[in-house]
Amino acid sequence: MSRRQIQPISYYNNGILQGNRVILSQAITLVESQKQAHQELAAELVNGLLPHAGKSMRIGITGVPGAGKSSLIETLGMHAISAGKKVAVLAIDPSSAQTKGSILGDKTRMESLANHSNAFIRPSAAGSQLGGVAQKTRESMLLCEAAGYNLILIETVGVGQSEVAVSQMVDFFLLVLITGAGDELQGIKRGVMEMADLIAINKADGQNLPLAKQQAIELNRALSLFPKRTSGYKPHAIPVSAYEALAIDVLWAEFEAFFSKYSEQILTHRKAQNVSWMHQSIEQMLIQNFYNHNAVKQQLAAYEKEIEEGNLSSYQAALKLIQLFGQ
Amino acid sequence: MSRRQIQPISYYNNGILQGNRVILSQAITLVESQKQAHQELAAELVNGLLPHAGKSMRIGITGVPGAGKSSLIETLGMHAISAGKKVAVLAIDPSSAQTKGSILGDKTRMESLANHSNAFIRPSAAGSQLGGVAQKTRESMLLCEAAGYNLILIETVGVGQSEVAVSQMVDFFLLVLITGAGDELQGIKRGVMEMADLIAINKADGQNLPLAKQQAIELNRALSLFPKRTSGYKPHAIPVSAYEALAIDVLWAEFEAFFSKYSEQILTHRKAQNVSWMHQSIEQMLIQNFYNHNAVKQQLAAYEKEIEEGNLSSYQAALKLIQLFGQ
Repeated sequence: MSRRQIQPISYYNNGILQGNRVILSQAITLVESQKQAHQELAAELVNGLLPHAGKSMRIGITGVPGAGKSSLIETLGMHAISAGKKVAVLAIDPSSAQTKGSILGDKTRMESLANHSNAFIRPSAAGSQLGGVAQKTRESMLLCEAAGYNLILIETVGVGQSEVAVSQMVDFFLLVLITGAGDELQGIKRGVMEMADLIAINKADGQNLPLAKQQAIELNRALSLFPKRTSGYKPHAIPVSAYEALAIDVLWAEFEAFFSKYSEQILTHRKAQNVSWMHQSIEQMLIQNFYNHNAVKQQLAAYEKEIEEGNLSSYQAALKLIQLFGQ
Repeated sequence: MSRRQIQPISYYNNGILQGNRVILSQAITLVESQKQAHQELAAELVNGLLPHAGKSMRIGITGVPGAGKSSLIETLGMHAISAGKKVAVLAIDPSSAQTKGSILGDKTRMESLANHSNAFIRPSAAGSQLGGVAQKTRESMLLCEAAGYNLILIETVGVGQSEVAVSQMVDFFLLVLITGAGDELQGIKRGVMEMADLIAINKADGQNLPLAKQQAIELNRALSLFPKRTSGYKPHAIPVSAYEALAIDVLWAEFEAFFSKYSEQILTHRKAQNVSWMHQSIEQMLIQNFYNHNAVKQQLAAYEKEIEEGNLSSYQAALKLIQLFGQ
């Protein structure tokens, strides 16, 4: 985007509606841009395309690095394409400074999908605050839908906060674990397991299969202790193998059953999600404006130090900073 | 407070440091007041008493209504007093409009504690937003500490958000379940179980005892699937009976062991909590100012409707409202 001329809004609008992947990609770059002018154009673009968005299955996928999320997305995506779907894969990764963009960065793990004309893969926007990244991923999702993608897979890593953000933009949330449990669960943040609609125990092949089946039983026992969803849907665990494409049809059947059985609840849920996103965007903008305020920036660290040393109460410090902000 | 004259700050300050329960109670009413002048006085009071606060075990207690939290607090509180502690019981209940203040409302369930000179019981502030209630409970806790209470029990109900708030102000979080599991767990919100440092299976007496022991085994199995704490502490479940005072000494020993073994981690954790509270107070003030803004109040519902009908994107609506707010 940096070295390229910005196009008029009709260029992006028409290109997306025609399913042009290059223009879709350019539009997402616009959404991700930090420049005010780009952001305003992007907001207008997304707003205009809203009537064409929403006709997709929105699925979040999480799991620690090494759980085989990429392979699973590759296998699952190809299966969905063979079932007539157009597949978009996005990522939300607020920690990309840490992980150096490992998430979706390695497209070679999704070679078939990356080269298929009915798939669109977009690595995550680097750096920045979670709130901002989440908002941009959500807008990108709407653009993909307007471009005709009707299966959206949003990948994230098991770092807690990003799962919350993803769960607020999808209809269904898949947690990918690896056969052998115990240790790799340590990497999954508290709360993430209870957020999952389905747990896929990956690499359930060869010698691993009996172990994976045993793990599924144990996880189902643990999941039965969690509260039911208001829809009546019960989260559960199943063994799968991305490598041997084992039980991918079972996984796909789970998705299809969910989306056909709970279609009304999903629509209601999305309306609530949309309103909730407005409030989140507002809060994010307020907070961003506050922490970008010069007087606040100059004093913040000093106040934090006083609090840590026990000389100033949290509330008193907050009051003083809000006064500096001029509210 | 309404019909009573406000006193000079030295009145509250000295009264609290002398451990005067009437003045402590008046000061908490000041903290809970919606009036600007009261709030400013309260903030100054809390700030001045900070050097005298912090010397307590801060324990959060949650569980669905009927789990026997009040009886457990009564028994546990009396046990702690016999071990030389001064006990303050506070409540955080954002849903008090719904529950009609059932939480701590019925002091008859804690008769011995309510009448003991080494105990202080304060029902929750009614109504209002969670953020505000949580902030007030936290300030009240600091005042109780300054008044010499060295065991703070903060009760809440299993409604999810309030547990998060409580977990951010305590050192240790106890979840109270009732023998017979399954159904009553349905009342516990997702995420709460993973937040618990200890699960007490209450009413483990008489015929219930074998069942409670079996439940503890199952819960411990489920808990072992959750990630470890960074401190190395492992959350677990134990059967107790508030009614027969069974295993209350075990529960007390759990607390004492935790606070002696992890004292350094607790101090570090509290510093982080304090800074985090400043940021939360700031966010809460920003959001409160926004939603109290006249132009925003007049337009909000209309924008929400447009979003629900799919005519306006969440982000675009947020931008427009922020402009109205004049930022």
